[in-house]
Amino acid sequence: MRQIKLTLSYDGTAYQGSQRQKNAPTVQDVLEKTLQKVLKEKTRILFAGRTDAGVHAEGQVASFKTGRKIPLKGLKRGLNALLPEDIVVRSAAQTQRLFHPRFDASLKEYRYTLWNDPTPSPFLRRYALHVPQKLNLKAMRRAARYLVGENDFKSFQAADERGRSSRRILRRLSIRRKGPLVRMTFQGNGFVYRMVRNIVGTLLQVGRGKRLPQEVKTLLKRRDRTLAGPTAPAQGLCLVRVTYPS
Amino acid sequence: MRQIKLTLSYDGTAYQGSQRQKNAPTVQDVLEKTLQKVLKEKTRILFAGRTDAGVHAEGQVASFKTGRKIPLKGLKRGLNALLPEDIVVRSAAQTQRLFHPRFDASLKEYRYTLWNDPTPSPFLRRYALHVPQKLNLKAMRRAARYLVGENDFKSFQAADERGRSSRRILRRLSIRRKGPLVRMTFQGNGFVYRMVRNIVGTLLQVGRGKRLPQEVKTLLKRRDRTLAGPTAPAQGLCLVRVTYPS
Repeated sequence: MRQIKLTLSYDGTAYQGSQRQKNAPTVQDVLEKTLQKVLKEKTRILFAGRTDAGVHAEGQVASFKTGRKIPLKGLKRGLNALLPEDIVVRSAAQTQRLFHPRFDASLKEYRYTLWNDPTPSPFLRRYALHVPQKLNLKAMRRAARYLVGENDFKSFQAADERGRSSRRILRRLSIRRKGPLVRMTFQGNGFVYRMVRNIVGTLLQVGRGKRLPQEVKTLLKRRDRTLAGPTAPAQGLCLVRVTYPS
Repeated sequence: MRQIKLTLSYDGTAYQGSQRQKNAPTVQDVLEKTLQKVLKEKTRILFAGRTDAGVHAEGQVASFKTGRKIPLKGLKRGLNALLPEDIVVRSAAQTQRLFHPRFDASLKEYRYTLWNDPTPSPFLRRYALHVPQKLNLKAMRRAARYLVGENDFKSFQAADERGRSSRRILRRLSIRRKGPLVRMTFQGNGFVYRMVRNIVGTLLQVGRGKRLPQEVKTLLKRRDRTLAGPTAPAQGLCLVRVTYPS
Protein backbone atom coordinates (compact mmCIF):
# COMPACT_ATOMS: atom_id res chain seq x y z
CA MET A 1 0.00 0.00 0.00
CA ARG A 2 1.24 3.48 -0.87
CA GLN A 3 0.05 6.62 0.81
CA ILE A 4 -0.62 9.55 -1.52
CA LYS A 5 -0.86 13.22 -0.59
CA LEU A 6 -2.99 15.49 -2.80
CA THR A 7 -2.97 19.27 -2.72
CA LEU A 8 -6.35 20.60 -3.79
CA SER A 9 -8.00 23.89 -4.71
CA TYR A 10 -11.74 24.13 -4.67
CA ASP A 11 -14.54 26.62 -4.96
CA GLY A 12 -16.71 25.61 -2.02
CA THR A 13 -19.85 27.40 -3.25
CA ALA A 14 -21.60 24.26 -4.47
CA TYR A 15 -20.62 21.97 -1.59
CA GLN A 16 -21.84 21.26 1.91
CA GLY A 17 -18.26 21.45 3.11
CA SER A 18 -15.31 19.10 2.89
CA GLN A 19 -16.41 16.13 5.03
CA ARG A 20 -18.90 13.48 4.00
CA GLN A 21 -22.51 14.07 5.01
CA LYS A 22 -25.78 12.33 4.47
CA ASN A 23 -27.68 13.47 1.38
CA ALA A 24 -25.52 16.50 0.66
CA PRO A 25 -22.76 16.91 -1.92
CA THR A 26 -19.37 17.40 -0.30
CA VAL A 27 -15.81 17.65 -1.58
CA GLN A 28 -15.04 14.28 0.01
CA ASP A 29 -17.88 12.54 -1.88
CA VAL A 30 -16.83 13.94 -5.22
CA LEU A 31 -13.15 13.22 -4.65
CA GLU A 32 -13.69 9.66 -3.41
CA LYS A 33 -16.03 8.88 -6.33
CA THR A 34 -13.56 10.27 -8.83
CA LEU A 35 -10.67 8.39 -7.22
CA GLN A 36 -12.68 5.21 -7.51
CA LYS A 37 -13.13 5.81 -11.25
CA VAL A 38 -9.42 6.43 -11.75
CA LEU A 39 -8.08 3.70 -9.45
CA LYS A 40 -10.87 1.12 -9.86
CA GLU A 41 -10.86 0.63 -6.10
CA LYS A 42 -12.57 2.23 -3.12
CA THR A 43 -10.47 4.64 -1.07
CA ARG A 44 -11.06 6.70 2.00
CA ILE A 45 -9.86 10.31 2.03
CA LEU A 46 -8.51 12.23 5.04
CA PHE A 47 -8.28 16.03 4.98
CA ALA A 48 -5.86 18.42 6.68
CA GLY A 49 -8.61 20.85 7.59
CA ARG A 50 -12.36 20.60 7.70
CA THR A 51 -13.99 23.34 5.65
CA ASP A 52 -17.64 24.23 6.14
CA ALA A 53 -20.31 24.69 3.47
CA GLY A 54 -19.35 27.53 1.12
CA VAL A 55 -15.75 27.78 2.40
CA HIS A 56 -13.01 27.60 -0.26
CA ALA A 57 -9.53 26.13 -0.43
CA GLU A 58 -6.46 27.09 -2.40
CA GLY A 59 -4.26 24.52 -0.71
CA GLN A 60 -6.25 21.86 1.11
CA VAL A 61 -4.31 18.66 1.68
CA ALA A 62 -5.90 15.23 1.40
CA SER A 63 -4.43 11.76 1.74
CA PHE A 64 -5.44 8.22 0.90
CA LYS A 65 -3.94 4.74 0.67
CA THR A 66 -3.87 2.68 -2.49
CA GLY A 67 -2.48 -0.60 -3.75
CA ARG A 68 -2.47 0.62 -7.36
CA LYS A 69 0.75 1.51 -9.10
CA ILE A 70 -0.55 4.42 -11.14
CA PRO A 71 2.18 7.08 -11.74
CA LEU A 72 1.60 10.33 -9.85
CA LYS A 73 1.48 12.49 -12.99
CA GLY A 74 -1.13 10.23 -14.52
CA LEU A 75 -3.12 10.26 -11.28
CA LYS A 76 -3.19 14.07 -11.22
CA ARG A 77 -4.12 14.27 -14.89
CA GLY A 78 -6.78 11.57 -14.61
CA LEU A 79 -8.38 13.18 -11.58
CA ASN A 80 -8.44 16.66 -13.14
CA ALA A 81 -9.97 15.26 -16.32
CA LEU A 82 -12.85 13.71 -14.36
CA LEU A 83 -13.34 16.15 -11.49
CA PRO A 84 -15.87 18.98 -11.88
CA GLU A 85 -14.31 22.36 -12.72
CA ASP A 86 -14.70 23.64 -9.15
CA ILE A 87 -12.28 21.07 -7.70
CA VAL A 88 -8.68 20.93 -8.96
CA VAL A 89 -5.76 18.71 -7.96
CA ARG A 90 -2.67 20.93 -7.84
CA SER A 91 -0.20 18.20 -7.00
CA ALA A 92 0.04 14.53 -6.11
CA ALA A 93 2.98 13.13 -4.14
CA GLN A 94 3.85 9.95 -2.36
CA THR A 95 4.39 10.29 1.40
CA GLN A 96 5.66 8.08 4.15
CA ARG A 97 3.13 5.53 5.25
CA LEU A 98 2.23 7.02 8.60
CA PHE A 99 1.55 10.51 7.24
CA HIS A 100 -1.64 12.08 8.58
CA PRO A 101 -2.68 15.32 6.86
CA ARG A 102 -4.31 16.80 9.95
CA PHE A 103 -2.17 15.60 12.85
CA ASP A 104 1.14 16.12 11.07
CA ALA A 105 0.43 19.69 9.94
CA SER A 106 2.74 22.21 11.58
CA LEU A 107 1.09 25.36 10.22
CA LYS A 108 -2.18 26.27 8.56
CA GLU A 109 -2.99 29.49 6.80
CA TYR A 110 -6.48 30.84 6.30
CA ARG A 111 -7.52 34.04 4.55
CA TYR A 112 -10.72 35.95 5.04
CA THR A 113 -11.56 38.43 2.29
CA LEU A 114 -13.77 41.51 2.52
CA TRP A 115 -15.07 43.56 -0.37
CA ASN A 116 -15.19 46.90 1.43
CA ASP A 117 -17.01 49.24 -0.90
CA PRO A 118 -20.48 50.85 -0.91
CA THR A 119 -21.29 48.91 -4.13
CA PRO A 120 -21.12 45.10 -4.13
CA SER A 121 -18.89 43.27 -6.63
CA PRO A 122 -20.62 40.83 -9.02
CA PHE A 123 -17.28 39.00 -9.42
CA LEU A 124 -16.42 38.50 -5.77
CA ARG A 125 -19.87 37.71 -4.43
CA ARG A 126 -18.86 34.06 -3.92
CA TYR A 127 -15.35 34.79 -2.61
CA ALA A 128 -15.63 37.77 -0.31
CA LEU A 129 -17.94 39.28 2.28
CA HIS A 130 -19.44 42.57 1.15
CA VAL A 131 -18.98 45.24 3.81
CA PRO A 132 -20.45 48.56 2.60
CA GLN A 133 -19.55 50.59 5.72
CA LYS A 134 -16.22 52.28 6.31
CA LEU A 135 -13.93 50.18 8.48
CA ASN A 136 -11.36 51.39 10.95
CA LEU A 137 -8.53 49.01 10.06
CA LYS A 138 -6.21 50.55 12.62
CA ALA A 139 -8.59 49.63 15.40
CA MET A 140 -9.02 46.16 13.91
CA ARG A 141 -5.26 45.65 13.82
CA ARG A 142 -4.96 46.80 17.40
CA ALA A 143 -7.62 44.28 18.45
CA ALA A 144 -5.95 41.56 16.39
CA ARG A 145 -2.70 41.97 18.33
CA TYR A 146 -4.39 40.70 21.51
CA LEU A 147 -5.16 37.43 19.76
CA VAL A 148 -1.71 36.58 18.44
CA GLY A 149 0.28 34.11 20.52
CA GLU A 150 -0.64 31.02 22.50
CA ASN A 151 -4.14 31.44 23.87
CA ASP A 152 -7.21 29.57 24.91
CA PHE A 153 -9.60 30.46 22.07
CA LYS A 154 -12.73 29.12 23.75
CA SER A 155 -14.49 32.47 23.27
CA PHE A 156 -14.13 31.98 19.52
CA GLN A 157 -15.03 28.31 19.37
CA ALA A 158 -18.39 27.28 17.92
CA ALA A 159 -20.68 26.42 20.82
CA ASP A 160 -21.27 22.86 19.64
CA GLU A 161 -17.74 21.60 20.12
CA ARG A 162 -16.71 20.57 23.65
CA GLY A 163 -14.26 18.44 25.51
CA ARG A 164 -11.02 18.97 23.55
CA SER A 165 -8.63 21.69 24.58
CA SER A 166 -9.16 25.04 22.88
CA ARG A 167 -5.58 26.22 23.35
CA ARG A 168 -3.92 27.09 20.05
CA ILE A 169 -0.99 29.17 18.83
CA LEU A 170 -2.01 31.96 16.47
CA ARG A 171 1.30 32.96 14.88
CA ARG A 172 0.09 35.77 12.69
CA LEU A 173 -3.02 37.80 12.04
CA SER A 174 -2.46 40.47 9.42
CA ILE A 175 -5.02 42.83 7.91
CA ARG A 176 -4.19 44.41 4.57
CA ARG A 177 -6.12 46.69 2.25
CA LYS A 178 -5.67 46.86 -1.51
CA GLY A 179 -8.30 49.16 -2.96
CA PRO A 180 -11.70 47.86 -1.89
CA LEU A 181 -10.24 44.47 -0.96
CA VAL A 182 -9.34 43.77 2.64
CA ARG A 183 -7.49 40.53 3.30
CA MET A 184 -7.13 39.08 6.78
CA THR A 185 -4.49 36.37 6.98
CA PHE A 186 -4.41 33.88 9.85
CA GLN A 187 -1.49 31.54 10.47
CA GLY A 188 -1.51 29.06 13.32
CA ASN A 189 -0.64 25.57 14.44
CA GLY A 190 -4.35 24.75 14.53
CA PHE A 191 -7.74 26.40 14.77
CA VAL A 192 -10.73 25.53 16.91
CA TYR A 193 -14.02 25.05 15.07
CA ARG A 194 -15.14 28.28 13.35
CA MET A 195 -12.34 30.23 15.04
CA VAL A 196 -11.45 32.32 11.99
CA ARG A 197 -15.03 33.26 11.17
CA ASN A 198 -15.79 34.08 14.81
CA ILE A 199 -12.70 36.27 15.10
CA VAL A 200 -13.60 38.04 11.84
CA GLY A 201 -17.15 38.68 13.10
CA THR A 202 -15.69 40.23 16.25
CA LEU A 203 -13.05 42.30 14.45
CA LEU A 204 -15.75 43.65 12.13
CA GLN A 205 -17.59 44.97 15.19
CA VAL A 206 -14.36 46.73 16.16
CA GLY A 207 -13.91 48.08 12.62
CA ARG A 208 -17.42 49.53 12.64
CA GLY A 209 -16.82 51.20 16.01
CA LYS A 210 -19.26 48.98 17.89
CA ARG A 211 -16.57 47.61 20.18
CA LEU A 212 -13.25 48.93 21.46
CA PRO A 213 -10.09 47.00 20.56
CA GLN A 214 -9.38 46.38 24.28
CA GLU A 215 -12.65 44.49 24.64
CA VAL A 216 -11.16 41.73 22.53
CA LYS A 217 -8.46 41.24 25.15
CA THR A 218 -11.09 40.91 27.87
CA LEU A 219 -13.37 38.55 26.00
CA LEU A 220 -10.48 36.28 25.07
CA LYS A 221 -9.66 35.92 28.76
CA ARG A 222 -13.24 35.21 29.75
CA ARG A 223 -13.37 32.01 27.62
CA ASP A 224 -17.08 32.51 26.89
CA ARG A 225 -18.39 32.20 23.34
CA THR A 226 -21.44 34.37 24.08
CA LEU A 227 -19.17 37.41 24.55
CA ALA A 228 -17.58 37.41 21.07
CA GLY A 229 -19.17 38.67 17.86
CA PRO A 230 -21.25 36.73 15.34
CA THR A 231 -19.79 34.16 12.93
CA ALA A 232 -18.79 35.85 9.68
CA PRO A 233 -20.32 34.27 6.53
CA ALA A 234 -18.60 31.28 4.92
CA GLN A 235 -17.90 32.68 1.44
CA GLY A 236 -15.11 35.02 2.60
CA LEU A 237 -13.04 32.18 4.03
CA CYS A 238 -10.33 30.22 2.23
CA LEU A 239 -7.87 27.58 3.47
CA VAL A 240 -4.74 28.89 1.77
CA ARG A 241 -2.05 26.36 2.68
CA VAL A 242 -1.02 23.63 5.06
CA THR A 243 2.61 23.22 5.98
CA TYR A 244 4.38 20.08 7.23
CA PRO A 245 7.75 19.74 8.94
CA SER A 246 10.24 18.80 6.23
CA MET B 1 -37.83 63.80 -19.88
CA ARG B 2 -34.47 63.31 -18.18
CA GLN B 3 -31.69 61.18 -19.56
CA ILE B 4 -29.90 58.96 -17.03
CA LYS B 5 -26.49 57.35 -17.40
CA LEU B 6 -25.82 54.17 -15.44
CA THR B 7 -22.41 52.59 -14.90
CA LEU B 8 -22.75 48.84 -14.49
CA SER B 9 -20.67 45.84 -13.49
CA TYR B 10 -21.85 42.41 -14.41
CA ASP B 11 -20.76 38.82 -14.41
CA GLY B 12 -21.76 37.76 -17.92
CA THR B 13 -21.65 33.99 -17.23
CA ALA B 14 -25.41 33.55 -16.97
CA TYR B 15 -26.38 35.85 -19.86
CA GLN B 16 -26.62 35.62 -23.61
CA GLY B 17 -24.79 38.92 -23.86
CA SER B 18 -25.83 42.51 -23.31
CA GLN B 19 -28.37 43.11 -26.11
CA ARG B 20 -31.94 41.84 -26.13
CA GLN B 21 -32.53 38.52 -27.88
CA LYS B 22 -35.45 36.24 -28.45
CA ASN B 23 -35.92 33.57 -25.76
CA ALA B 24 -32.56 34.12 -24.09
CA PRO B 25 -31.78 36.02 -20.88
CA THR B 26 -29.67 39.11 -21.52
CA VAL B 27 -28.41 41.97 -19.38
CA GLN B 28 -30.73 44.33 -21.26
CA ASP B 29 -33.83 42.23 -20.43
CA VAL B 30 -33.01 42.05 -16.74
CA LEU B 31 -32.12 45.73 -16.52
CA GLU B 32 -35.21 46.95 -18.39
CA LYS B 33 -37.50 44.73 -16.30
CA THR B 34 -35.93 45.95 -13.08
CA LEU B 35 -36.12 49.58 -14.21
CA GLN B 36 -39.80 49.08 -14.93
CA LYS B 37 -40.35 47.84 -11.37
CA VAL B 38 -38.52 50.81 -9.89
CA LEU B 39 -39.87 53.53 -12.21
CA LYS B 40 -43.34 52.08 -12.92
CA GLU B 41 -42.86 52.89 -16.58
CA LYS B 42 -41.34 51.16 -19.58
CA THR B 43 -37.92 52.31 -20.65
CA ARG B 44 -35.51 51.39 -23.39
CA ILE B 45 -31.82 50.94 -22.57
CA LEU B 46 -28.87 51.82 -24.81
CA PHE B 47 -25.40 50.41 -24.10
CA ALA B 48 -21.95 51.84 -24.76
CA GLY B 49 -20.59 48.50 -25.91
CA ARG B 50 -22.19 45.27 -26.97
CA THR B 51 -20.89 42.34 -24.97
CA ASP B 52 -21.35 38.77 -26.17
CA ALA B 53 -22.60 35.77 -24.20
CA GLY B 54 -20.27 35.08 -21.26
CA VAL B 55 -18.37 38.38 -21.56
CA HIS B 56 -18.15 40.49 -18.39
CA ALA B 57 -18.19 44.20 -17.61
CA GLU B 58 -16.66 46.23 -14.81
CA GLY B 59 -17.71 49.55 -16.31
CA GLN B 60 -20.40 49.15 -18.95
CA VAL B 61 -22.38 52.35 -19.55
CA ALA B 62 -26.11 52.31 -20.22
CA SER B 63 -28.57 55.16 -20.73
CA PHE B 64 -32.32 55.60 -20.73
CA LYS B 65 -34.91 58.36 -20.70
CA THR B 66 -37.51 58.80 -17.99
CA GLY B 67 -40.22 61.24 -16.99
CA ARG B 68 -40.00 60.16 -13.32
CA LYS B 69 -38.41 62.41 -10.76
CA ILE B 70 -36.80 59.70 -8.64
CA PRO B 71 -33.56 60.91 -6.98
CA LEU B 72 -30.41 59.31 -8.40
CA LYS B 73 -29.30 57.81 -5.09
CA GLY B 74 -32.68 56.18 -4.63
CA LEU B 75 -32.60 54.91 -8.20
CA LYS B 76 -29.23 53.24 -7.66
CA ARG B 77 -30.29 51.76 -4.34
CA GLY B 78 -33.63 50.57 -5.69
CA LEU B 79 -32.05 48.92 -8.71
CA ASN B 80 -29.36 47.17 -6.68
CA ALA B 81 -31.98 45.89 -4.23
CA LEU B 82 -33.97 44.28 -7.06
CA LEU B 83 -31.27 43.24 -9.54
CA PRO B 84 -29.79 39.74 -9.33
CA GLU B 85 -26.38 39.57 -7.61
CA ASP B 86 -24.51 39.25 -10.91
CA ILE B 87 -25.53 42.74 -12.13
CA VAL B 88 -24.61 45.81 -10.06
CA VAL B 89 -25.25 49.51 -10.66
CA ARG B 90 -22.08 51.35 -9.67
CA SER B 91 -23.37 54.84 -10.31
CA ALA B 92 -26.34 56.74 -11.70
CA ALA B 93 -25.99 60.26 -13.08
CA GLN B 94 -28.07 62.68 -15.07
CA THR B 95 -26.64 63.59 -18.47
CA GLN B 96 -27.44 66.08 -21.16
CA ARG B 97 -30.42 65.08 -23.23
CA LEU B 98 -28.58 64.18 -26.41
CA PHE B 99 -26.07 61.88 -24.72
CA HIS B 100 -25.54 58.58 -26.55
CA PRO B 101 -23.47 56.00 -24.64
CA ARG B 102 -22.00 54.43 -27.76
CA PHE B 103 -21.55 57.31 -30.20
CA ASP B 104 -20.28 59.76 -27.59
CA ALA B 105 -17.64 57.44 -26.12
CA SER B 106 -14.10 58.70 -26.73
CA LEU B 107 -12.26 55.68 -25.33
CA LYS B 108 -13.09 52.12 -24.39
CA GLU B 109 -10.94 49.75 -22.39
CA TYR B 110 -11.19 45.98 -22.53
CA ARG B 111 -9.15 43.47 -20.61
CA TYR B 112 -8.53 39.87 -21.56
CA THR B 113 -7.32 37.63 -18.73
CA LEU B 114 -5.35 34.41 -19.01
CA TRP B 115 -4.71 31.90 -16.25
CA ASN B 116 -1.34 30.68 -17.47
CA ASP B 117 -0.50 27.71 -15.30
CA PRO B 118 -0.38 23.94 -15.86
CA THR B 119 -3.21 23.54 -13.32
CA PRO B 120 -6.55 25.28 -13.89
CA SER B 121 -7.96 27.65 -11.24
CA PRO B 122 -11.36 26.76 -9.77
CA PHE B 123 -11.84 30.43 -8.85
CA LEU B 124 -11.07 31.99 -12.21
CA ARG B 125 -12.75 29.47 -14.46
CA ARG B 126 -15.49 31.97 -15.27
CA TYR B 127 -13.18 35.00 -15.56
CA ALA B 128 -10.07 33.86 -17.37
CA LEU B 129 -8.96 31.57 -20.15
CA HIS B 130 -6.87 28.67 -18.91
CA VAL B 131 -3.65 28.38 -20.93
CA PRO B 132 -1.55 25.47 -19.60
CA GLN B 133 1.38 25.92 -22.05
CA LYS B 134 4.29 28.27 -21.51
CA LEU B 135 3.81 31.56 -23.35
CA ASN B 136 6.47 33.73 -24.89
CA LEU B 137 5.19 37.10 -23.72
CA LYS B 138 8.08 38.95 -25.37
CA ALA B 139 7.03 37.64 -28.77
CA MET B 140 3.41 38.47 -28.00
CA ARG B 141 4.34 42.04 -27.07
CA ARG B 142 6.37 42.39 -30.25
CA ALA B 143 3.38 41.23 -32.30
CA ALA B 144 1.07 43.55 -30.36
CA ARG B 145 3.14 46.58 -31.35
CA TYR B 146 2.15 46.10 -35.01
CA LEU B 147 -1.50 46.51 -34.05
CA VAL B 148 -1.27 49.75 -32.09
CA GLY B 149 -2.21 52.88 -34.00
CA GLU B 150 -4.84 53.68 -36.61
CA ASN B 151 -5.45 50.58 -38.69
CA ASP B 152 -8.03 48.79 -40.73
CA PHE B 153 -8.84 45.85 -38.44
CA LYS B 154 -10.79 43.87 -41.04
CA SER B 155 -8.58 40.82 -40.46
CA PHE B 156 -9.79 40.75 -36.87
CA GLN B 157 -13.46 41.47 -37.54
CA ALA B 158 -16.00 38.67 -37.12
CA ALA B 159 -16.96 37.44 -40.57
CA ASP B 160 -20.62 38.22 -40.13
CA GLU B 161 -20.30 41.99 -39.94
CA ARG B 162 -19.96 43.88 -43.24
CA GLY B 163 -20.47 47.25 -44.77
CA ARG B 164 -19.28 49.62 -42.02
CA SER B 165 -15.69 50.76 -42.01
CA SER B 166 -13.30 48.64 -39.98
CA ARG B 167 -10.78 51.45 -39.38
CA ARG B 168 -10.18 52.03 -35.69
CA ILE B 169 -7.53 53.56 -33.48
CA LEU B 170 -6.00 51.11 -31.02
CA ARG B 171 -4.25 53.40 -28.53
CA ARG B 172 -2.73 50.79 -26.28
CA LEU B 173 -2.25 47.06 -26.06
CA SER B 174 -0.30 46.02 -22.99
CA ILE B 175 0.46 42.50 -21.79
CA ARG B 176 1.36 42.05 -18.14
CA ARG B 177 2.10 39.03 -16.03
CA LYS B 178 1.49 38.76 -12.31
CA GLY B 179 2.21 35.21 -11.20
CA PRO B 180 0.02 32.87 -13.26
CA LEU B 181 -2.23 35.76 -14.33
CA VAL B 182 -1.62 37.43 -17.69
CA ARG B 183 -3.66 40.55 -18.36
CA MET B 184 -3.96 42.02 -21.84
CA THR B 185 -5.32 45.55 -21.83
CA PHE B 186 -6.81 47.12 -24.95
CA GLN B 187 -7.65 50.81 -25.22
CA GLY B 188 -9.17 52.29 -28.34
CA ASN B 189 -11.68 54.70 -29.75
CA GLY B 190 -13.79 51.76 -30.87
CA PHE B 191 -13.54 48.07 -31.66
CA VAL B 192 -14.93 46.10 -34.57
CA TYR B 193 -17.05 43.09 -33.70
CA ARG B 194 -15.01 40.44 -31.82
CA MET B 195 -11.80 42.38 -32.44
CA VAL B 196 -10.33 41.83 -28.98
CA ARG B 197 -11.05 38.10 -28.90
CA ASN B 198 -9.72 37.65 -32.44
CA ILE B 199 -6.53 39.54 -31.62
CA VAL B 200 -6.08 37.47 -28.44
CA GLY B 201 -6.54 34.24 -30.41
CA THR B 202 -3.83 35.38 -32.81
CA LEU B 203 -1.43 36.58 -30.10
CA LEU B 204 -1.81 33.24 -28.34
CA GLN B 205 -0.57 31.54 -31.50
CA VAL B 206 2.46 33.82 -31.35
CA GLY B 207 2.94 33.12 -27.64
CA ARG B 208 2.92 29.38 -28.28
CA GLY B 209 5.45 29.73 -31.09
CA LYS B 210 3.02 28.78 -33.85
CA ARG B 211 3.40 32.12 -35.61
CA LEU B 212 6.12 34.72 -35.81
CA PRO B 213 5.39 38.21 -34.47
CA GLN B 214 6.02 39.68 -37.95
CA GLU B 215 3.18 37.63 -39.42
CA VAL B 216 0.76 39.79 -37.46
CA LYS B 217 1.99 42.81 -39.39
CA THR B 218 1.35 41.04 -42.68
CA LEU B 219 -2.05 39.68 -41.85
CA LEU B 220 -3.23 43.07 -40.60
CA LYS B 221 -2.33 44.56 -43.98
CA ARG B 222 -4.07 41.81 -45.92
CA ARG B 223 -7.50 42.69 -44.44
CA ASP B 224 -8.63 39.07 -44.55
CA ARG B 225 -10.29 37.46 -41.53
CA THR B 226 -9.31 33.96 -42.62
CA LEU B 227 -5.62 34.76 -42.03
CA ALA B 228 -5.88 35.65 -38.33
CA GLY B 229 -6.15 33.19 -35.45
CA PRO B 230 -9.28 31.76 -33.85
CA THR B 231 -11.62 33.75 -31.61
CA ALA B 232 -10.53 33.43 -27.97
CA PRO B 233 -13.29 32.21 -25.61
CA ALA B 234 -15.70 34.73 -24.11
CA GLN B 235 -15.06 34.26 -20.40
CA GLY B 236 -11.62 35.95 -20.44
CA LEU B 237 -13.03 39.22 -21.76
CA CYS B 238 -14.19 42.18 -19.69
CA LEU B 239 -15.32 45.68 -20.70
CA VAL B 240 -13.38 47.65 -18.10
CA ARG B 241 -14.39 51.27 -18.72
CA VAL B 242 -15.87 53.70 -21.19
CA THR B 243 -14.63 57.27 -21.23
CA TYR B 244 -16.45 60.36 -22.51
CA PRO B 245 -15.06 63.78 -23.36
CA SER B 246 -15.63 65.96 -20.29
